[in-house]
Amino acid sequence: MGTPVSIPLYILLSLLILHSLSSNSSAYSDHPRHRSSKHAPRFLGKFSRPFNQIHQQNEYEYETLFFEQRLDHFSFAKLPSFQQKYLINTHHWVGPSRLGPIFFYCGNEGNIEWFAANTGFLWELAPRFGAMVIFPEHRYYGESMPYGSREIAYKNASTLSYLTAEQALADYAVLITELKRNLSAQACPVVLFGGSYGGMLAAWMRLKYPHVAIGALASSAPILQFEDIVPPETFYDIVSNDFRRESISCFQTIKESWDVIASKGQENDGLNQLTKTFRFCRKLNSSEDLSNWLDSAYSYLAMVDYPYPAGFLMPLPANPIKEVCSRIDSGPNGTSILQRIFEGVSVYYNYTGTVECFNLDDDPHGMSGWDWQACTEMVMPLASSKESSMFPAFDYNYTDDEEGCWIAFNVKPRPTWISTEFGGHDIKNTLKTFGSNIIFSNGLLDPWSGGSVLEDISETIVTLVTEKGAHHLDLRAATDKDPDWLVEQRESEVKLIKNWLKDYYENRRATFAV
Amino acid sequence: MGTPVSIPLYILLSLLILHSLSSNSSAYSDHPRHRSSKHAPRFLGKFSRPFNQIHQQNEYEYETLFFEQRLDHFSFAKLPSFQQKYLINTHHWVGPSRLGPIFFYCGNEGNIEWFAANTGFLWELAPRFGAMVIFPEHRYYGESMPYGSREIAYKNASTLSYLTAEQALADYAVLITELKRNLSAQACPVVLFGGSYGGMLAAWMRLKYPHVAIGALASSAPILQFEDIVPPETFYDIVSNDFRRESISCFQTIKESWDVIASKGQENDGLNQLTKTFRFCRKLNSSEDLSNWLDSAYSYLAMVDYPYPAGFLMPLPANPIKEVCSRIDSGPNGTSILQRIFEGVSVYYNYTGTVECFNLDDDPHGMSGWDWQACTEMVMPLASSKESSMFPAFDYNYTDDEEGCWIAFNVKPRPTWISTEFGGHDIKNTLKTFGSNIIFSNGLLDPWSGGSVLEDISETIVTLVTEKGAHHLDLRAATDKDPDWLVEQRESEVKLIKNWLKDYYENRRATFAV
Repeated sequence: MGTPVSIPLYILLSLLILHSLSSNSSAYSDHPRHRSSKHAPRFLGKFSRPFNQIHQQNEYEYETLFFEQRLDHFSFAKLPSFQQKYLINTHHWVGPSRLGPIFFYCGNEGNIEWFAANTGFLWELAPRFGAMVIFPEHRYYGESMPYGSREIAYKNASTLSYLTAEQALADYAVLITELKRNLSAQACPVVLFGGSYGGMLAAWMRLKYPHVAIGALASSAPILQFEDIVPPETFYDIVSNDFRRESISCFQTIKESWDVIASKGQENDGLNQLTKTFRFCRKLNSSEDLSNWLDSAYSYLAMVDYPYPAGFLMPLPANPIKEVCSRIDSGPNGTSILQRIFEGVSVYYNYTGTVECFNLDDDPHGMSGWDWQACTEMVMPLASSKESSMFPAFDYNYTDDEEGCWIAFNVKPRPTWISTEFGGHDIKNTLKTFGSNIIFSNGLLDPWSGGSVLEDISETIVTLVTEKGAHHLDLRAATDKDPDWLVEQRESEVKLIKNWLKDYYENRRATFAV
Repeated sequence: MGTPVSIPLYILLSLLILHSLSSNSSAYSDHPRHRSSKHAPRFLGKFSRPFNQIHQQNEYEYETLFFEQRLDHFSFAKLPSFQQKYLINTHHWVGPSRLGPIFFYCGNEGNIEWFAANTGFLWELAPRFGAMVIFPEHRYYGESMPYGSREIAYKNASTLSYLTAEQALADYAVLITELKRNLSAQACPVVLFGGSYGGMLAAWMRLKYPHVAIGALASSAPILQFEDIVPPETFYDIVSNDFRRESISCFQTIKESWDVIASKGQENDGLNQLTKTFRFCRKLNSSEDLSNWLDSAYSYLAMVDYPYPAGFLMPLPANPIKEVCSRIDSGPNGTSILQRIFEGVSVYYNYTGTVECFNLDDDPHGMSGWDWQACTEMVMPLASSKESSMFPAFDYNYTDDEEGCWIAFNVKPRPTWISTEFGGHDIKNTLKTFGSNIIFSNGLLDPWSGGSVLEDISETIVTLVTEKGAHHLDLRAATDKDPDWLVEQRESEVKLIKNWLKDYYENRRATFAV
């Protein structure tokens, strides 16, 4: 894997883009030290796809509207405004006179339709609460492009410079305030939902704009994964443990495979052999490319190690890691490590068995919004430990990141800004003292859970943790295969949301009863 | 007074600048409708002066240092950094190992040395608490100039665009965080102090960056004076009442004087006569100029209607309004209204009796930072009521403001942004639910008290209100003429600060005792 880089590329559930959304080559991707960083844990954007490519029928109805937003909320620089897309459904809303709630999903780093299609829990809840549903798109993603087009918005550091979490939060605060004003719904309670980066936004919104919503469900939100708040090894340790718990030999095989791959790559004709073994469509340029490709697969598998078949990242069976390990382990005696690995990773890249050869571009790494965010604010340190990780060991090296970001974007990260802006290094204490009404839900198979809040912080900032859940499983639509623990987790969330609303309505009555 | 404009120009105690800091003429000041706005309640900046002009000896010692700040904290736009000045004194600081407190004054809109010289209360407190004292300068004021010079920083809306409250708060959050890191003082508790706009910043800092300081003393901080949260007439009503409580006839005389002035101004040779009566050095251009000059004086008098002689705005006796009214009332029968007014206002502009003639420029109105702030975020509606105000009646007219700001600065205000960003329209409730450890201190003679918090909000957000205090009197140094109620107000503040620190230290012990 070369030098695994701690570029904090962050992913969500996503559909694999068969055709890259954008694959501008860049100095960044060419830089040898950082070729591997493209294969660090994924961000969402590269996996979300335009709605018309989503093969599942969209069962949710909404209107698609646009709202004019300032490009920089915190200055009066003369900048063009941009159109922020949002999806809205008022079918079940009981209206302003009955203080009907507003369910507001904090859009993450991708097309909002894709999030809408994958957040069935919210849609299922809306009729039960008589709620309006709003899915705003995060700036610089999907169609919500400053300067009118992605091409210009992503042109350089200058045009990208307004892609920050604080700007996104301000977008949401302004959108909510204005929408409510326009609908004469100022008194309607807003409940925030978000998963992954969106969950972080929802939680941060409770701290920075507590008056805008009454509570937030922050699912799989690693708000602690900054600076040294949690150990940097946690991500890869959890991925590794997801494999080891299925099979120690599987874990071992993967752990040993990296050296085998690197050695093979050194041999005469080694790359050709690797290309053949792993059935790539085009000859590998380096063994590192292969290692990165594998690294990605394992990370994604951990994130979507769901208890039922699902086709979000790739078409996968239930408990896909179990299947991967089964194939890795079950080769007859004499099967090479590389062959075992190939069989295993094919679960991820080719479960349907219909793929004839693999393109590295199937995992495109074009410069994306999240690459930018990781190079500016979302500096989330990663490392791989010698013992507990099945990945090659590496320490977190900020200088490498900084260098890579300069080469890629001509920008210098600000690794301590997020904690200065959102709650400080001791953010748990900040939440305890100043926060309220947040649910941190997590599944412990999710590698990002290690950076999230896993213990109750206060009476109203609580955690709902499932041992066998993965990356924001709870936000997905209900299925008839949901295990009990998942059903319970969701019902607990519903209870808590009910209580927020109940408190809100009671306080209002009390206020007006005097 | 022409059309009194609701441009929210905000002032603090200040020394009259004998020579304008900057007096670029501008379209704004020439615009007839807005000539009067320059005479709306004053902002601080135009009164603060470079340290070497302050006639009182500075009795406080400090080092003057500079800290490099980003120009835009909330984007990654390639902008030059700027040097933020701060004054620091560690003489009494008991140091990091003893968790010595840090007293941090939230610099307002002017030279920081001037604020330091006028915030004796903080200096007096520091030794009692073993505290470090820091006075950071607000960006775009004093020497803390983006682009290296005031000339460039104030050149146009583009260069000024980063003069916003959110940027200032981020400056303070970053400065505190970095200073503490450099001094290994991360565990030292920070207490914020601020008066007027600075008090607003201190209170807002408790909402937006609650992890950065443990509490704030917000003196004379009109955080409610936005949109329609308080009646827009409140400012001028309080000024008027400050006069009426001294003498009803005084109030009446002033109330009637505006028409007399306007009529006189219409007469042939009327302006000459007014110029003579009021002893201006140069002939008046309009009667409006005179009215604005008087309006200013009355507003300032209300703000610094102190119970002891002081020379902050102008050299004034104790209870200056009483003296003004005494002079207005005491002219023998037959004294014209204008003559009475002249005698009265001379208390403000010429108490020493040494001024031979008055310059309108003595009250310079050069485009200043506060003019900009009032035209962008700090949109604080003002109006004057028919009955209770001694000023000519006018309604708040946002459109006029908007027009004036466009002419002056080529910028459009955002009148609802402050409430979106800081706590919402129902900010009192926001404070109650999410805030803590704020003291709102006010004096009811202060016209800005009407926009401040005057009732306890919670157990830890309390108010200390004195009937006879004026604009952040409590922040000033103790004098042997302090009335008991002032001494008590300060001692209450000290008690509350002590409690914050006590709680902080106890919580830390509890945390580490486990």
